[in-house]
Amino acid sequence: MTDLPVPPVQPDLLGQPHHDGSALYVSDPYPQLGDTVTVRVRVPHDADVRAVHVRLTPDAEPYFVDAAVERRTATDTWWAADIVVHNPVTNYRFILEGGPTAYQWLNGTGVHLRDVPDAADFRLTAFDAPPAWASDAVVYQVFPDRFARSAQQDHRPVPDWAIPAEWDDSPDLTPGRIAHHFFGGDLDGVADHLDHLDALGANVLYLTPFFPARSNHRYDASSFDRVDPVLGGDEALHRLVDAAHARGMKVLGDFTTNHTGDAHEWFVAARADEDCEERSYYFWDDSALGYVAWLGVPSLPKLNYDSDALRHRVFEDKDGVVRRWLTGDSPLDGWRVDVANMTGRYRGQDRNHEIAQQMRSAMADAAPDALLVGEHCHDYTRDAQGEGWHGVMNYAGFTRPVWTWLRDRGQAPKFLGSPLMVPRLGGTSVMETMREFAAGVPWTTVRHSFTLVGSHDTTRIRTLVGEDARQVDVAAGLLFTMPGIPMLTYGDEIGMRGDFGEDGRRPMPWDETRWDGRLLGVYRGLIAARRGSMALREGGVRWVHADDDALVFLRESPDEVALVHCARGAHDPVALSTRNLPGIGSGSAAYGPPPELGVETLTLRADGPQVSIWTWTVTE
Amino acid sequence: MTDLPVPPVQPDLLGQPHHDGSALYVSDPYPQLGDTVTVRVRVPHDADVRAVHVRLTPDAEPYFVDAAVERRTATDTWWAADIVVHNPVTNYRFILEGGPTAYQWLNGTGVHLRDVPDAADFRLTAFDAPPAWASDAVVYQVFPDRFARSAQQDHRPVPDWAIPAEWDDSPDLTPGRIAHHFFGGDLDGVADHLDHLDALGANVLYLTPFFPARSNHRYDASSFDRVDPVLGGDEALHRLVDAAHARGMKVLGDFTTNHTGDAHEWFVAARADEDCEERSYYFWDDSALGYVAWLGVPSLPKLNYDSDALRHRVFEDKDGVVRRWLTGDSPLDGWRVDVANMTGRYRGQDRNHEIAQQMRSAMADAAPDALLVGEHCHDYTRDAQGEGWHGVMNYAGFTRPVWTWLRDRGQAPKFLGSPLMVPRLGGTSVMETMREFAAGVPWTTVRHSFTLVGSHDTTRIRTLVGEDARQVDVAAGLLFTMPGIPMLTYGDEIGMRGDFGEDGRRPMPWDETRWDGRLLGVYRGLIAARRGSMALREGGVRWVHADDDALVFLRESPDEVALVHCARGAHDPVALSTRNLPGIGSGSAAYGPPPELGVETLTLRADGPQVSIWTWTVTE
Repeated sequence: MTDLPVPPVQPDLLGQPHHDGSALYVSDPYPQLGDTVTVRVRVPHDADVRAVHVRLTPDAEPYFVDAAVERRTATDTWWAADIVVHNPVTNYRFILEGGPTAYQWLNGTGVHLRDVPDAADFRLTAFDAPPAWASDAVVYQVFPDRFARSAQQDHRPVPDWAIPAEWDDSPDLTPGRIAHHFFGGDLDGVADHLDHLDALGANVLYLTPFFPARSNHRYDASSFDRVDPVLGGDEALHRLVDAAHARGMKVLGDFTTNHTGDAHEWFVAARADEDCEERSYYFWDDSALGYVAWLGVPSLPKLNYDSDALRHRVFEDKDGVVRRWLTGDSPLDGWRVDVANMTGRYRGQDRNHEIAQQMRSAMADAAPDALLVGEHCHDYTRDAQGEGWHGVMNYAGFTRPVWTWLRDRGQAPKFLGSPLMVPRLGGTSVMETMREFAAGVPWTTVRHSFTLVGSHDTTRIRTLVGEDARQVDVAAGLLFTMPGIPMLTYGDEIGMRGDFGEDGRRPMPWDETRWDGRLLGVYRGLIAARRGSMALREGGVRWVHADDDALVFLRESPDEVALVHCARGAHDPVALSTRNLPGIGSGSAAYGPPPELGVETLTLRADGPQVSIWTWTVTE
Repeated sequence: MTDLPVPPVQPDLLGQPHHDGSALYVSDPYPQLGDTVTVRVRVPHDADVRAVHVRLTPDAEPYFVDAAVERRTATDTWWAADIVVHNPVTNYRFILEGGPTAYQWLNGTGVHLRDVPDAADFRLTAFDAPPAWASDAVVYQVFPDRFARSAQQDHRPVPDWAIPAEWDDSPDLTPGRIAHHFFGGDLDGVADHLDHLDALGANVLYLTPFFPARSNHRYDASSFDRVDPVLGGDEALHRLVDAAHARGMKVLGDFTTNHTGDAHEWFVAARADEDCEERSYYFWDDSALGYVAWLGVPSLPKLNYDSDALRHRVFEDKDGVVRRWLTGDSPLDGWRVDVANMTGRYRGQDRNHEIAQQMRSAMADAAPDALLVGEHCHDYTRDAQGEGWHGVMNYAGFTRPVWTWLRDRGQAPKFLGSPLMVPRLGGTSVMETMREFAAGVPWTTVRHSFTLVGSHDTTRIRTLVGEDARQVDVAAGLLFTMPGIPMLTYGDEIGMRGDFGEDGRRPMPWDETRWDGRLLGVYRGLIAARRGSMALREGGVRWVHADDDALVFLRESPDEVALVHCARGAHDPVALSTRNLPGIGSGSAAYGPPPELGVETLTLRADGPQVSIWTWTVTE
């Protein structure tokens, strides 16, 4: 308790009716087509709601179902309705009778007094469930050339494309050299350092490509049939996967569905012989290059999925790239797909959803417990409805809003390809943007998308926030408490810097005196809080408060609630009525300072960047 | 001029940057794939904008193009950029540098300070242009059984399904009888009354189905190969079409792609022989009915477009339903498609877009000057991107918002299938809803969709507004001045009433003493204003003012501007700065009272329901 004055309770978002796709509100998150599912909406007693209906759109025609009161608690009336999952993506919204305009719609962006399109409707999907292990995942992204170099590497020849570097060098960012600067990290080096992941609490290792290539990033694969010998070859991957599995850790690979390298055996064959099967794998045209390449980069010829032969070779062939690495000895546990958003798209061709579905289906067949996450650096809502990728890299609905909140006033990075610096915005816009993108996809997509505050392709979060490293705490606070699969890039946890993607791909320093030990403690603490809380891992999300400098939300599972308070800086105290938060008095701090708990009022204060998580058990 | 005090100029929407798909802003509305198109944005001098860029998403990857200043006028700076139509649907938005947050996005719903998904991006499409005549179209919907009965009808036998009525009877609304009450209107009856359409200013006759059937609505076709003999048969249709064409009038048919009647020759054959081709045309299941029917109505078995044979017969066969009625002697000028939204959709099957494209393609081949408009009683945005239907029946983005503004306080109708009465809302919500639905589709879809304030399926507008018939003027004012193809239902123009669809299908009284002559004058005046104004027919739309009781907007073509003021009742005067409306002083009243034009201020007043249109020629 404190002597500070308790501010008046502010109008807050807890007075709004609420629904999301979590277990409190949806009886079956993974129904079959034709199943009946109970959906529930929580209506605070203060809301003027007399009756509730559900609007469905089976086969795109509106259809209405009445909801009934299921129970009343101290704070809310819970209405429930049984709805049929008539289409593979079944969207629905609630109609709340009452209020100033006779009725209101409730969809994923909240309550609306006028008609709005279906884009933010809630969604149930009738596709196979993603792997259960994904719920608990904390993903650690490793760029193999830069993470750790094993003793074996000294005995391997330097590849002909490489410009050798010493481990403590800075990456050479000169055009023409940037992709060839070679530090010699390898897979055995990664295996040597799994203790670091374990100590951090990361339980999924995601490796950017390990296929042979002619660059340090290896997105220009020359084969999908083997591991680059420079990284230690197939045997090193097996050793690494086995070591990870022995610790209960999963391993994800990185497959570029969109293109190969121009040194790829398929492309070499296709250029040598116009009559060979591989010719059909690419787009040939009258340009100076003679073929279509990713963003015009000659070394990255784009794959043409009009070719049935290509699709068979990639997806259906048991020795093809998608299946063979997920099966047999030392299998991977899933794929991150590079440039997923552009895959199968070129001018008049759009096979993107088809390809995503085919890959999902091949994986369901070969390795049903494997995870499939697509890279999408843009608005993913129409591409992530659940039939293909389990989730996406959530740049649009997570990274960008977090960046707008936390970026340094002086030094604002550009975001992938943008001509303009990321703007600095208040917390309300963060909430609204996160909510709007999440509302555009099924809840399962939100939960199985990588939340991230940076990657090997972007500015490092430590650089983005500027002087005050405690702002990284706030970014990490959001990363580990929001719905989704948190993914961090190697070294974020020790405060590694980088102005942009390639600059951030610095070698991991293994001299711990160069680490930000305080920050590492923050990451460990937040990850431990997440791994210890069902609400943080699987709960729904209900926004409680947003202003320029504070974001407050609840994560709620049937048995546990977590109240998360993130402040980017000092802010006026936020007062909430404890009446709206039954059970909160029995809680405990899962991370950071506890809230100020009065009998009637809960007060959240911050005098600088801060994250706190308070959890309690549901008793009512 | 008047003695009334001139109110202060209110903050208005004219201060916002603007773009839409009209000729002022887009150099080529119907480019080919790969073409370069110039897009322009108008930025008022008062707006804080330092630079402009365009964001495109070729193959779903963001890509940025700089805009340059093209010209400066007294009011605005016009920025222009050349963009490539890389995909068949090429979406784009503007980034405006400046303002409180460093930059703002401009998309079809206006200016946004935070990231928003692409749903409201502007769109260029690379599909064939709709017929040019559609720009000038005013569509008159006729329900053949109820419009006019020719002398020949007395000599035709009453069909076996029919319950005969006298012309002056009220429709029998008893369940079981409602679809069989038979008034005997016929196609020669329609031909007898084309003078009425001409005098009104309607130049497109849209006939609800004329195929043989077993109901008065004929959406349960028993054949698509001939005209119902009860309506006069093929010859009567030929006479009607020839008579219409002789007047320069177009004729649209009504084809139910979603289902047939259970008496249809295909369904009869399919039931009789499980091995016949027609068996594949339907969905057979284990239900009590044994087949899938539209909303479970047994007489309306749903068509199954998994059947290649069905698709060939409907779309590709030159004697098939889509082609044969648009070719040969006395061809129709297009199709309205019934239940377009559900067509090709059933549970896991979704061939809707494919079917729409196939129908469009068949029509482009057989009758390139024919119009294709799909019924869609719901959110059409994802189904109307321009590759299939030229437009839709715009219930969601026009009818519903107009209804919420004008419906009687006492008597609020339900909308198709809804359990709740339509709410009564202010003008701001009308503007926002119209803008949001329009923003979800290409401009060409907006322009080629039927605007309507009711149809044979809904409450009549005269009933909807309650006591004061002048509210119908306001509905008609919006109908004939907003972008789109205005469609009215026979009799709306004389004040015909109806509580719901079937009740509104009353026989047209040809005794003119029963007409609301004042209202007919309003319709004639508004239609004449539209047909006389390029701005109203083809201009963009820029909102100027919205409050509870007033809506004010500009329609702007390169040569002409129309200022439209609609009031649902008395409202406080709306004052606009004439500085923002150059040339307005040279205008004239195209309909209704002129605005009050001061040197610096334009004042719009209304002391009751009112529509006014003021047009002027662009000189700068």
